[in-house]
Amino acid sequence: MDSRTGLPVVGMIGGGQLARMTHQAAIALGQSLRVLAASPDDGAALVAADTMIGHHTDLEALRRFAKGCDVVTFDHEHVPGELIETLAAEGVTVRPSAAALRHAQHKGIMRERLADLGVPMPAWRRVTSVAEVAEFAAAHGGGPVIGKSLVGGYDGRGVFALDRPEDAAALLRDAGELLVEERVPLVRELAAVVARSPWGQIAAYPVVETVQQDGICVEVVAPAPGLDDETATGAQQLAIRIATELDVVGILAVEMFQVDGGILVNELAMRPHNSGHWTIEGARTSQFEQHLRAVLDYPLGDTAPLAPVAVMVNVLGGPPGGMGIDERLHHLFAADPGARVHLYGKQVRPGRKIGHVTVLGDDLEVVRARARSAARWLREGEGG
Amino acid sequence: MDSRTGLPVVGMIGGGQLARMTHQAAIALGQSLRVLAASPDDGAALVAADTMIGHHTDLEALRRFAKGCDVVTFDHEHVPGELIETLAAEGVTVRPSAAALRHAQHKGIMRERLADLGVPMPAWRRVTSVAEVAEFAAAHGGGPVIGKSLVGGYDGRGVFALDRPEDAAALLRDAGELLVEERVPLVRELAAVVARSPWGQIAAYPVVETVQQDGICVEVVAPAPGLDDETATGAQQLAIRIATELDVVGILAVEMFQVDGGILVNELAMRPHNSGHWTIEGARTSQFEQHLRAVLDYPLGDTAPLAPVAVMVNVLGGPPGGMGIDERLHHLFAADPGARVHLYGKQVRPGRKIGHVTVLGDDLEVVRARARSAARWLREGEGG
Repeated sequence: MDSRTGLPVVGMIGGGQLARMTHQAAIALGQSLRVLAASPDDGAALVAADTMIGHHTDLEALRRFAKGCDVVTFDHEHVPGELIETLAAEGVTVRPSAAALRHAQHKGIMRERLADLGVPMPAWRRVTSVAEVAEFAAAHGGGPVIGKSLVGGYDGRGVFALDRPEDAAALLRDAGELLVEERVPLVRELAAVVARSPWGQIAAYPVVETVQQDGICVEVVAPAPGLDDETATGAQQLAIRIATELDVVGILAVEMFQVDGGILVNELAMRPHNSGHWTIEGARTSQFEQHLRAVLDYPLGDTAPLAPVAVMVNVLGGPPGGMGIDERLHHLFAADPGARVHLYGKQVRPGRKIGHVTVLGDDLEVVRARARSAARWLREGEGG
Repeated sequence: MDSRTGLPVVGMIGGGQLARMTHQAAIALGQSLRVLAASPDDGAALVAADTMIGHHTDLEALRRFAKGCDVVTFDHEHVPGELIETLAAEGVTVRPSAAALRHAQHKGIMRERLADLGVPMPAWRRVTSVAEVAEFAAAHGGGPVIGKSLVGGYDGRGVFALDRPEDAAALLRDAGELLVEERVPLVRELAAVVARSPWGQIAAYPVVETVQQDGICVEVVAPAPGLDDETATGAQQLAIRIATELDVVGILAVEMFQVDGGILVNELAMRPHNSGHWTIEGARTSQFEQHLRAVLDYPLGDTAPLAPVAVMVNVLGGPPGGMGIDERLHHLFAADPGARVHLYGKQVRPGRKIGHVTVLGDDLEVVRARARSAARWLREGEGG
């Protein structure tokens, strides 16, 4: 508890854009997010008053950071589980717990647990040899399969198209073990974002469509256009069930494949997630405030959407050159006074997520075109 | 320009809730608001990474603060004009300028200038003696009149009901000079908030109704219920004209009296204003982002409201005792998951503005009842 305000102190490990946007939400709740950033130039470190510099694998840094926090939570999934368990054993309240978080940290553990729960998924197998990859591929049509690092992957990193089983050889030499999955014939990708409190209250956001390019989410449409009620409710119920069974506290984002006849679970994230950025303007309660409410065991907020359609488009850094980000922002604001901009305070590098834009409205095609155009204005190094 | 981000640095003099909420808006624009706070416990100092402690009347502090700012602006109107002029003469970009700001700092100068512009106002006079007060009162019905300090008043401070001219004696002894104004038969109070950029672009928000108690704004209804289009447009046009004639840059809030047959200008504020807090959730672009866009000469944002009605209710500190603010927040969130809360990180003192709540919806009576109830939940020391 902050004695100056009578309000709790939430510590977030990791100083990226998720911590940056969570700080904005914390300010409204009378708090100031405490941030453990790896560098003073991290997006959240640039804006949060209560920042400590330290690495998320350094137990002593974590201990110093946690001191005085009412609850410690995460901007990413890279904190080793044994360190989280040590903190918890020493009396720190960490949410989500190490036991829940390992399902977002280790794809093998996640697949095994979801299989036990009977959750629909693509066919999968943990493999340690090219022969096992070949066996799996042969059993699933004989064509290319997907290889995934068991740990450490995000934003397309750690995911590999294995056209032939031998393509896994180098990966297996490095990692020892991989997850392989069948390629499923996608209709599209969806995401169901829910928040769960320690008390067990759950709030579900509308199911969204996510559009990926090269494994990176580039666009989110809320709600997922044309999704029938039964599938939408089913996706929400599945996310709620996973959150409950895995004892998740905070935001859980369930990335899904929509296939002919149903949905399959692809990935889990236990933190505010790119597929929920649209909620900042598009829902009554943003996922960032919701994450804070959940980890603090406050009653959760209303998830109702505020417009018939919201489209969020990520701004990825373009090649060097061209006008600066500030000049581009001028042009965007002149072109579309209603586009909502979020810049993360990052140095521009090609392909790096430097921000996002959200547009709300009534007509999907109009809203999507505006959001894409706004993101293009902000992408540096292009013609405009 | 912040070399780490390629984005501008805005410095705000004063570390109260307006700077706190402006920092939230700055974060979205890729910035980090630089704050000059009088104390490390000021609401904005608790949350902003780039805070300097110093007093707004200390020229050396102002100089150090302004160094590296692309533009310097204000959380309050208490910076002496000559210090602003010194900074400007030394090359600091200060918006609004001292020449504009003095109309919000000195009620006599404001009345004289608006009179020159033919702006409708209550009858007024600058007085230095009880005899002049008596003369003014006699000329305007003979009853009580209003006395106002020429400088330094806000939130009801510096405004006095003068039932008899002699009531002004002590005030005149202290201040030497006062403004006296007739008491006008109010229908209600309104406010027109506009933003103006150096280039001269102006964006006007819908005219709102403000409800005062003991001179303090307690409630704002947006848009003002039942206001006819002609009066609403007239009020916006009047605010636009004042902003233009006074060369205001940033937010200008024009507080008005609605009287039988028209509107009269009461006060001016040149900074984000309590009558615009509803725009955080209720308008496409909040007044805080709009202020930043204006002082940076970015094109201004869309001011369209996002719901048929928004009601903002201030949370004033209650008497000591009762449950703490954190517990009250729990109860409020349980009672109304859709109420939007803003707490300013302030120690609770009776009557002190410690936050506000906003509710959006379709039906004025429902929305107002919810907003009032939410504010009651957060008021400490009461039964419920």
